[in-house]
Amino acid sequence: MKTYNLALIPGDGIGVDVTSAAMEVLSAAARGRFAVETTAFPWSCAYYLEHGVMMPADGIETLRGFDAIFLGAVGWPATVPDSVSLHGLLLPIRQAFDQYANIRPHRLLAGVEGPLKAQGFDILCIRENTEGEYSGAGGRVHRGSDNEVAVETSVFTRKGVERILRFGFEQARARRKHLTSVTKSNAQKYSMVFWDEVTRTLAAEYPDVTVSHMHIDAMAAKMVMAPQDLDVVVASNLFGDILTDLGAAIQGGLGFAASANINPDRSAPSMFEPVHGSAPDIAGKNVANPIAAIWSVAQMLDHLGEAETSAAVLAAIEAATAQGIGIRPGLNTTAEIKAAVVAALEA
Amino acid sequence: MKTYNLALIPGDGIGVDVTSAAMEVLSAAARGRFAVETTAFPWSCAYYLEHGVMMPADGIETLRGFDAIFLGAVGWPATVPDSVSLHGLLLPIRQAFDQYANIRPHRLLAGVEGPLKAQGFDILCIRENTEGEYSGAGGRVHRGSDNEVAVETSVFTRKGVERILRFGFEQARARRKHLTSVTKSNAQKYSMVFWDEVTRTLAAEYPDVTVSHMHIDAMAAKMVMAPQDLDVVVASNLFGDILTDLGAAIQGGLGFAASANINPDRSAPSMFEPVHGSAPDIAGKNVANPIAAIWSVAQMLDHLGEAETSAAVLAAIEAATAQGIGIRPGLNTTAEIKAAVVAALEA
Ligand SMILES: CC(C)[C@H](C(=O)O)[C@@H](O)C(=O)O
Ligand SMILES: CC(C)[C@H](C(=O)O)[C@@H](O)C(=O)O
Repeated sequence: MKTYNLALIPGDGIGVDVTSAAMEVLSAAARGRFAVETTAFPWSCAYYLEHGVMMPADGIETLRGFDAIFLGAVGWPATVPDSVSLHGLLLPIRQAFDQYANIRPHRLLAGVEGPLKAQGFDILCIRENTEGEYSGAGGRVHRGSDNEVAVETSVFTRKGVERILRFGFEQARARRKHLTSVTKSNAQKYSMVFWDEVTRTLAAEYPDVTVSHMHIDAMAAKMVMAPQDLDVVVASNLFGDILTDLGAAIQGGLGFAASANINPDRSAPSMFEPVHGSAPDIAGKNVANPIAAIWSVAQMLDHLGEAETSAAVLAAIEAATAQGIGIRPGLNTTAEIKAAVVAALEA
Repeated sequence: MKTYNLALIPGDGIGVDVTSAAMEVLSAAARGRFAVETTAFPWSCAYYLEHGVMMPADGIETLRGFDAIFLGAVGWPATVPDSVSLHGLLLPIRQAFDQYANIRPHRLLAGVEGPLKAQGFDILCIRENTEGEYSGAGGRVHRGSDNEVAVETSVFTRKGVERILRFGFEQARARRKHLTSVTKSNAQKYSMVFWDEVTRTLAAEYPDVTVSHMHIDAMAAKMVMAPQDLDVVVASNLFGDILTDLGAAIQGGLGFAASANINPDRSAPSMFEPVHGSAPDIAGKNVANPIAAIWSVAQMLDHLGEAETSAAVLAAIEAATAQGIGIRPGLNTTAEIKAAVVAALEA
């Protein structure tokens, strides 16, 4: 039987709650099909308070040997600044392993009622995950004075833009053959005009894919007014970040938003994590919705080549929500939702 | 009787249609109260095709003498690139006259059904309008090569950030005393951390205003999931741009989204314009919704000190929509909607 080596980083807050539920679903899904060897790492804000770092110096090297990484959530702002928790763990992993494609699916699961009157959308957001507006280049001068200036530089490379768009075109080809590229080239004339140019060049290679160019402002409006017109959406690090939280909202909330940080070249492990944060206020209370995390497990199985089991997990999630389980915050406990998914898997 | 000198730039496409309707409403509102001397300028893409510029070299100086500027919409991308039309007219006016506060109200007018199940929100977005992510600083190297890099630099000055936040705090004080400052300081550690610091400093001066700090991604989700929790929202040029299109969407569409580009120091004229673009596909067909433009007239009257007439115009808009006029695209012509508002004003 095939064995996958999985690195597990439950992290902080509800990251721990949902990871534990997701791992039970993974075990049930694997049974009789493949084995999963899980190694857990306690890297988190609690770890930081004890060791002064979010992960050991050889953390990245340790993770490199695994087939995949599963992360719950990171951050406990009351005691550790985000600049430490995120920039010391989550973001370095995305960058070190060149997980340049952040894939986030947005659709209403059976039984879930979103905030929109519109129904029946099915969007795959592909967010650039390694450069752009979150490059971390910038500085401040005349600090503290009346004359202070802060600059933050977005850096877009041809390699970076081309590979994410190519990834998007391939996904569109495998779906409804429609790609929307999101920029703001009427106001950002260097970075976004460049992105538009690369999109047009690549579009010529994919004549079977229809391409729409949209500005981020109009796109945000479209996600709310006509989400059913969208198929694959490709956006920069910042624009993808915004659109996928919006996508999470229209699919019923962050409790349903899954995400995969993919290294498509497979030169290093990919990482799977729900979009939601650590939500310290509800941590450890058995109330967090584990569906986003379980859906991320389905994404991981698909990436590992276990497409059939991935589909079975997604079907089990939807069998549970179709019965009304977990469809609204507070309706069911974490344990109940997990149990319903496991039961559907084993049915 | 007091006379206001108004510079009118109908611009392109439906800009012409809605401006004409809005000016008729303005005349009806002014009757017996004050006079409006209107000077129209044909600056537009058609003007550009004839003269090679969007406005004459002394355009800005010409506008400087007016009490206010009213603009319809600019752009006709099929013949003139946005880089010419917007950067040759709209954006230079905002910048030359230091119209640093872009005010955009978002609420559902009586009778209008938005795309959300949620109702009863009333948000005032204040967008920084002169610097930040749309500073236009940047460049490209190794153009066309595999090694090409494009950079775009956001520039935030203490003066720029402080004045827009102060403006927001004053607005909040005059409303429900809640201000949400929107950044992304967990990923953009120079510009957005700076903005957060300035917000905290100013908050100490306004102890009567409750301040929330939100990241743009979570904020986009909140606009859709719980818009009724928001009062005054202050954001950078880009984040404000995105949130106000989202605001337009949740209030029923761009046909309802008004905007004021304010120079609060009154050292130069302010400009009023609907948020929507020129929509070439429906231009001249008597179908564009003039409500956004008429609402912008109400904002202009308020800025000019005619608060009572401003309120009367807004009430007239809402009297029309309450009867079902103009509440959905295609339901009424531009002329019908204008006539209903004028009738309500004169009733
Ligand atoms: C926590 C934060 C840095 C992160 C991001 O912006 O990438 C999160 O919002 C996400 O979307 O994964
Ligand atoms: C046309 C464009 C440059 C403009 C902007 O982004 O400022 C518009 O979207 C707006 O919101 O007024």
